[in-house]
Amino acid sequence: MIVVLKHGTSPDRQEQLIHWLKNLGLQIHVSKGESYTVLGLVGDTSRVDMDLVGSLDIVDAVKRVSEPFKCCNRKFHPEDTVVEVGDVKIGGGHFAMIAGPCSVESEEQIVAVAKAVKASGADLLRGGAFKPRTSPYDFAGLKAEGLELLKIARAETGLPFVTELMNIMDLDLFEDVDVIQVGARNMQNFDLLRELGKVDKPILLKRGLANTLKELLMSAEYIMASGNEQVMLCERGIRTFSDYTRNTLDLSAVPMLRELSHLPIIVDPSHATGIARLVPPMALAATAAGADGLIIEVHNDPIHALCDGAQSLRPEEYDKLAAKVRSIRGVVA
Amino acid sequence: MIVVLKHGTSPDRQEQLIHWLKNLGLQIHVSKGESYTVLGLVGDTSRVDMDLVGSLDIVDAVKRVSEPFKCCNRKFHPEDTVVEVGDVKIGGGHFAMIAGPCSVESEEQIVAVAKAVKASGADLLRGGAFKPRTSPYDFAGLKAEGLELLKIARAETGLPFVTELMNIMDLDLFEDVDVIQVGARNMQNFDLLRELGKVDKPILLKRGLANTLKELLMSAEYIMASGNEQVMLCERGIRTFSDYTRNTLDLSAVPMLRELSHLPIIVDPSHATGIARLVPPMALAATAAGADGLIIEVHNDPIHALCDGAQSLRPEEYDKLAAKVRSIRGVVA
Amino acid sequence: MIVVLKHGTSPDRQEQLIHWLKNLGLQIHVSKGESYTVLGLVGDTSRVDMDLVGSLDIVDAVKRVSEPFKCCNRKFHPEDTVVEVGDVKIGGGHFAMIAGPCSVESEEQIVAVAKAVKASGADLLRGGAFKPRTSPYDFAGLKAEGLELLKIARAETGLPFVTELMNIMDLDLFEDVDVIQVGARNMQNFDLLRELGKVDKPILLKRGLANTLKELLMSAEYIMASGNEQVMLCERGIRTFSDYTRNTLDLSAVPMLRELSHLPIIVDPSHATGIARLVPPMALAATAAGADGLIIEVHNDPIHALCDGAQSLRPEEYDKLAAKVRSIRGVVA
Amino acid sequence: MIVVLKHGTSPDRQEQLIHWLKNLGLQIHVSKGESYTVLGLVGDTSRVDMDLVGSLDIVDAVKRVSEPFKCCNRKFHPEDTVVEVGDVKIGGGHFAMIAGPCSVESEEQIVAVAKAVKASGADLLRGGAFKPRTSPYDFAGLKAEGLELLKIARAETGLPFVTELMNIMDLDLFEDVDVIQVGARNMQNFDLLRELGKVDKPILLKRGLANTLKELLMSAEYIMASGNEQVMLCERGIRTFSDYTRNTLDLSAVPMLRELSHLPIIVDPSHATGIARLVPPMALAATAAGADGLIIEVHNDPIHALCDGAQSLRPEEYDKLAAKVRSIRGVVA
Repeated sequence: MIVVLKHGTSPDRQEQLIHWLKNLGLQIHVSKGESYTVLGLVGDTSRVDMDLVGSLDIVDAVKRVSEPFKCCNRKFHPEDTVVEVGDVKIGGGHFAMIAGPCSVESEEQIVAVAKAVKASGADLLRGGAFKPRTSPYDFAGLKAEGLELLKIARAETGLPFVTELMNIMDLDLFEDVDVIQVGARNMQNFDLLRELGKVDKPILLKRGLANTLKELLMSAEYIMASGNEQVMLCERGIRTFSDYTRNTLDLSAVPMLRELSHLPIIVDPSHATGIARLVPPMALAATAAGADGLIIEVHNDPIHALCDGAQSLRPEEYDKLAAKVRSIRGVVA
Repeated sequence: MIVVLKHGTSPDRQEQLIHWLKNLGLQIHVSKGESYTVLGLVGDTSRVDMDLVGSLDIVDAVKRVSEPFKCCNRKFHPEDTVVEVGDVKIGGGHFAMIAGPCSVESEEQIVAVAKAVKASGADLLRGGAFKPRTSPYDFAGLKAEGLELLKIARAETGLPFVTELMNIMDLDLFEDVDVIQVGARNMQNFDLLRELGKVDKPILLKRGLANTLKELLMSAEYIMASGNEQVMLCERGIRTFSDYTRNTLDLSAVPMLRELSHLPIIVDPSHATGIARLVPPMALAATAAGADGLIIEVHNDPIHALCDGAQSLRPEEYDKLAAKVRSIRGVVA
Repeated sequence: MIVVLKHGTSPDRQEQLIHWLKNLGLQIHVSKGESYTVLGLVGDTSRVDMDLVGSLDIVDAVKRVSEPFKCCNRKFHPEDTVVEVGDVKIGGGHFAMIAGPCSVESEEQIVAVAKAVKASGADLLRGGAFKPRTSPYDFAGLKAEGLELLKIARAETGLPFVTELMNIMDLDLFEDVDVIQVGARNMQNFDLLRELGKVDKPILLKRGLANTLKELLMSAEYIMASGNEQVMLCERGIRTFSDYTRNTLDLSAVPMLRELSHLPIIVDPSHATGIARLVPPMALAATAAGADGLIIEVHNDPIHALCDGAQSLRPEEYDKLAAKVRSIRGVVA
Repeated sequence: MIVVLKHGTSPDRQEQLIHWLKNLGLQIHVSKGESYTVLGLVGDTSRVDMDLVGSLDIVDAVKRVSEPFKCCNRKFHPEDTVVEVGDVKIGGGHFAMIAGPCSVESEEQIVAVAKAVKASGADLLRGGAFKPRTSPYDFAGLKAEGLELLKIARAETGLPFVTELMNIMDLDLFEDVDVIQVGARNMQNFDLLRELGKVDKPILLKRGLANTLKELLMSAEYIMASGNEQVMLCERGIRTFSDYTRNTLDLSAVPMLRELSHLPIIVDPSHATGIARLVPPMALAATAAGADGLIIEVHNDPIHALCDGAQSLRPEEYDKLAAKVRSIRGVVA
């Protein structure tokens, strides 16, 4: 970490700052130039609050040189992490197709969708049992019953499944779940992350709507520092001033996260756009950008397709998309 | 709710949509114009997913006419809510000064700051015991011990206090807390909100970094719909492309929330800017914009002031600011 | 356009609004429901200021049903526009590779790069002669001399070229330019757009950093309404809170613009990311998302490559990328 | 400027970079630490492109220590600039009220509004003659005729006026204008800025919707570096994800710009919110935050007030507001 002092800082103030930094266990290298003085901080600078140091009146600039994340940092772990879910591998050249309905609604629905996406080559099933909803008056999922229906669909198809956990207190119910999803709104629910670090299951960690890549990696760090290294990062759109799409899918996050971290990177084009007809082009784009997998909403029920199907692909649409995704993989992998 | 169908929608598709909407328990008024058809939806439209209807290929536009929030809506509750904390009243013309350190660090510190801000006329003490931190390696607060120190400061000064709860499982520890704060990162931790709806204590609900005013009000709705009507809304800055300040304090939220809701509105200029010297002007601006209170970081410890004091005011700075705030209140109240 | 009146609006105020709207030459259909009244506006509503109507105290909501853009609207022009530059076609299934240095620096440089990108299959050369710079102290391009060097490169390679015009007063200098680029900062320089509507040359219109898709299309409309229908839209990244990349490339703009408009859509991954090593994945992603072309920075000068090459690809990198782009086109076209 | 090299950078690559930087006329101080090497650049670093250096693979971080703006920088000009318009002074403790209609519509209108705002104590009149419009089909102002009407209003009331210039080619028409406004969309129309640097009139420079404070100051620098030091900065709202207001008024820009620059700072609450009833609270807030003046839309025509009045205050509302603004000034000045 580099701290640049303002021109004209008194030796007293400078000493006071150095003294305080040394008390944090750091070594300080002072480099005095003609027009400014630079302090180089050596040691574990992860505990130094950059914003606070930067706001001191004697400080012109602060720059962190080493990233504050370690466990998920590619510098310290150059090899790609490969997450394994049963026989399915994700990352390190292994690409995963995750598909299924937004919410689990009934046994018929989830089994039918599971069979359909399996037939199209999906590797994992997705389906929400506990649903975060902006309004307290909206349907919040079938909860425990939804988890049971997912297990039935798994038994029928052999597909492992991923589903969202919103509350630490529900953790017992997730014992037989294959992959636990942390939703965008919980990306910085730090107590939840810490508990998931004690679980022996892969975690699909979704990026929050207004979170930077560094913050996403720091949240992965929470899980990993608590002992669980099976983390997958998921880009699902950020909030911008966008007028036609619900969110803005940030695909440059894919190669950038690849460079910063060894964890697998999944893209969710369904939530990012909120519009079914934009899902195929964005799924192909994510694949071309180098994602390790896609999580896509697919719905099968013709009666309710009018509404729930609106942001979901129909199985036949998904089937066509899956074939194109494989072709793109053939080019970029 | 208004649904505008695209020109040329087939009668079949139109009937299918109307049928589906009626199944949600709504009455539908069809208004056929020359170039488009408008469906007026009457009944409880809070369960209709606007995004989903809007994404149908036969739909040109969807517009919610009535707001989806009810308990916190001024339309149904024209009088200002006055939240009472002991003898302190907030809202409905009552202005509250809330002040104290970011984190509780020691008995000496919290008692000294409490005495100082009380002498400057503060109504409530603030202080973090459970601290959300982006990094798992950062200091996360004194936790239960911090709460005990806050009680000591309260006993010494008579100031009730507000402190953040991050995790439902800690709720028992908060029994003797005066006001519970929900932090920005937990604004959409819906299970937490629902539990706080069962608590008989005022809640200070902070707006998330990328949350709209409607989302903030829907989160207040979660608490109120579960039975707790003592909610205060808190603007603390939103995330933008801003280059010099940490966040952008959105003061137009103050008069806009005042119009939409009857709940008291508090402004936090310390977290919004992250820079102590910007706190006084933004505190005065918030007061002039019509806020019902301010929550401001004040730190008293000369030894650690170097760092922790960086975004906090010193007691003497706070004292000067408090006097100016009172003068501004004299103009706008 | 739909205007929803608030419940309880007095007949007088309603009549006053209807009267005013009729004076704008519109027909008004009144649809009175139990809880609200809807006015349907028929006629040329493009002159009605939505924001203003929406801010009236008797109005609950305003919704534009028909888009305010006409010339560039796919509804009125279902066939893809194909822009022709010499023998090169762009749009309607024709894909264009545009490549070259950020700035024209010298004859050797621009000719060498032109030859290199032509060898890799590029269709057009790019190169800046007039450069918009945030700082008045930065190099602002070779100006007229730069245009001459571009013509030399064209003569040597046969590649037509695209270059930016910043100022109407320079228009005479651009007589022998093949495609005129409007930069992101000038997207709403309306007088410039209007003048370019009188020019008989294709225009490459870049999206502004904080402009919506509707605003981009309205700017295209300025050019087209003035008589020039050869407009290409260019997505080059929007400004967000992004921490690692300069801007956020909004690839969902590609399929969304495709749906809204018949104009060709070009993507610029170089300016969007600002980092050369992110250009290939984002170029492939843009191709997979369905773009009609790519504009990519390529630099050839080994001596200055240290700096100017930083966000530019080297010719050999571009060559590899171009081959992969063609493979992706094989999948999605 | 500080450049931090990555650990393990080869001496060759380091030398190559140093050589290149020296060629830009800079002195380089090398400070070699155990885990990284820091280059300190001394000299005129304004020509070094930070983004480019930062994207080199051997560079870990780049940090500009001195601001790239000079003329408008408070460091080199500690005293507040006072802009003079006739007898009116703005900045350095002098506060200016600027008021008038969005567009000049007729002699009666502009004279009536001018008289009304003068009676309420306004110092300058505002009124648009050349209007930037998103749509080519919208009313774009009375142009030259509008300027004549503004001069009549000035003759009748003695109020100097400010009006927007969109196009360098119209400059001759502005000879008898008191203050020239550069609109938000033209903030980075660099050729326009440079020309205004040759004019002997105060310039009101509005911040662009997505421009940082540094970019605003760099645009002021364009004008000042060309010779015109009478520049006023104007905050008028930035584009965010905001759901109820058109833009987000960034009032923390006021104290931050005050610290960075000596130029007067004006706030426009009318365009920032787009809603007349939010203008008074935000005008008071801007005053409390320390602005040097306010530019507010006021409209007087009862017949058209239905529409054009929607975001404008009526004279009697402006009169009440002006009195409160003076009271707030009494507190903060």
